[in-house]
Amino acid sequence: MIMATSSQNMENISVAVDVMGGDFAPAEPVAGAVQAAREQGIDVLLVGDSDIVEAELLHHVTDGLNISIVPSEGVITETDNPVKAIRERPKASMLEAAKLVKSGQADAMVTMGSTGAAMASATLVVGLLDGVARPALGGPMFRPLSSAVLIDVGSSVDCRPSQMLGFAALGTAFARSIQKIENPRVGLLSVGDEEGKGNRQTKEAYPVFKGSNLNFVGNVEGWDFFQDKVDVVVCDGFVGNIIMKFAEGIGIAVSQLIPGLVGDKLSPEVVSKLVSLTSSIDIGGGGPLFGVDGLVLVGHGRAQAVGIAGAIALAQRARQERFVEAMRRELAGLL
Amino acid sequence: MIMATSSQNMENISVAVDVMGGDFAPAEPVAGAVQAAREQGIDVLLVGDSDIVEAELLHHVTDGLNISIVPSEGVITETDNPVKAIRERPKASMLEAAKLVKSGQADAMVTMGSTGAAMASATLVVGLLDGVARPALGGPMFRPLSSAVLIDVGSSVDCRPSQMLGFAALGTAFARSIQKIENPRVGLLSVGDEEGKGNRQTKEAYPVFKGSNLNFVGNVEGWDFFQDKVDVVVCDGFVGNIIMKFAEGIGIAVSQLIPGLVGDKLSPEVVSKLVSLTSSIDIGGGGPLFGVDGLVLVGHGRAQAVGIAGAIALAQRARQERFVEAMRRELAGLL
Repeated sequence: MIMATSSQNMENISVAVDVMGGDFAPAEPVAGAVQAAREQGIDVLLVGDSDIVEAELLHHVTDGLNISIVPSEGVITETDNPVKAIRERPKASMLEAAKLVKSGQADAMVTMGSTGAAMASATLVVGLLDGVARPALGGPMFRPLSSAVLIDVGSSVDCRPSQMLGFAALGTAFARSIQKIENPRVGLLSVGDEEGKGNRQTKEAYPVFKGSNLNFVGNVEGWDFFQDKVDVVVCDGFVGNIIMKFAEGIGIAVSQLIPGLVGDKLSPEVVSKLVSLTSSIDIGGGGPLFGVDGLVLVGHGRAQAVGIAGAIALAQRARQERFVEAMRRELAGLL
Repeated sequence: MIMATSSQNMENISVAVDVMGGDFAPAEPVAGAVQAAREQGIDVLLVGDSDIVEAELLHHVTDGLNISIVPSEGVITETDNPVKAIRERPKASMLEAAKLVKSGQADAMVTMGSTGAAMASATLVVGLLDGVARPALGGPMFRPLSSAVLIDVGSSVDCRPSQMLGFAALGTAFARSIQKIENPRVGLLSVGDEEGKGNRQTKEAYPVFKGSNLNFVGNVEGWDFFQDKVDVVVCDGFVGNIIMKFAEGIGIAVSQLIPGLVGDKLSPEVVSKLVSLTSSIDIGGGGPLFGVDGLVLVGHGRAQAVGIAGAIALAQRARQERFVEAMRRELAGLL
């Protein structure tokens, strides 16, 4: 997780946390929010059913922290149809959190709930930036092995070149504003680095990328994530989603073999470091939805307090670095 | 590498080895061929420029081994245009090896040369099985982490449903005959396991797979390689090639971090075991081209003697298990 450093001039930032969403709600989201309030000095708005949140808060010492409760009714789960659930439960925690962002009462929201519901809530409540038809998903998915931003990882499939160029602009905004890369190198994920290599989709997208004002470095291949050749890797959401899940699976598979191989020869701490190196292939607690006219961060359903606090810290950093404005600027630059 | 076991009734098998192809030719192909002749009792035909091969053989003890030299002229390299090179160098080592397979003088050929040239040689010289338009690439790419066969990994992109069904039949033949899986489970690589999930291509292929006589278990996702849910994973060559290279890259990236993490705490042997666990994500020395009417095995250009000997042993096993007949049978079953 990228943390804000104390040398920066901190603004007073408020983050709405959907404490009803995720596999370990409400315990872990509340614990993560309290941690972020304490360690990062963030104002947190806990959005959830009041009695549940109040009961959960009793487990924590919150004196002197800026923590408040914003009541909501019900929750949208992973198995719900997002649009239907939003219609049926208009006061669900995720929607109430999104309303706080829309109204400006919160600078950002963080949810560990359903990604599909978060995308729908962001679209319907917060709104999208000009030129964006649908929020995109991505981020530096393969840290610590690679810091390259992969976009899209599953929001849209069968994309047209113009959509893929939009992903490139949004990824560039992340690399530039959050990762502080001056002139992010954009690559189109393909099966060979020459212009003619690829499928119909990448062959059509290539000249569009080449003609844009992005810093397009051409096609990149699967291994180029790990070669410092590219900062923003653009692909169709079908491909990106498969790679993301493949990486998660391979990391877990390697990490499960490690204790058997070296468990008796290494301290538990070193084994756990190795296991976490191989299994931590994700963007930590959460990443922003790309293309939304506001900060909506979605984390892994299985995230625990540390990861959720990290997502809240990333929300703070995204706010400080004006990530939404950066996205707007990059998209406008395409025109 | 899958090795033939001594309990099997060994036939006298001959394998043509293109000793001019690959990054370490001729030294490593010759060394690998000598090793296979010694350890597996295979008759090896070394195909290459006579003086070069003869000089190289002087470094080895070959008494009592069935090793012969088949002269060829020139080599097709990675940077050549395969079809053009085949026309210009009709006696190149790869082509002479393919002719030995076609004429029945060799039961199989192994090359570490250009995959594109091997595909072209197999197509033009050895011929394709009925219903196959182009050789496919694949195999159990992610051992030891997964034994699932991935097909196609780059020979064809923008595939139609019928082509993808062909990949499924060819992968099934491998799993059934070589891996001895009785009723291989076939999955379509997609972004969700429900029938409706996927891109246009997988949505069109799904009913075609469902209506076939293959053991189709539905869509599978990126992490399912590592979950024992599927034996044959079918995808477009665009997707498969990206995953294959991604896995190679991530394996190397992890393996490079390991010595720094644990190098001072573990013996060099254990470190190298860990490194090889994470970086050995490939099908060893080589795998067969799928859909060819004969055994043509292509290995990694960087393969060394051990890997090449493994590829030759796999060729032996593929011959013993009647892999070509198995492919023909599975393809015929689709009709």
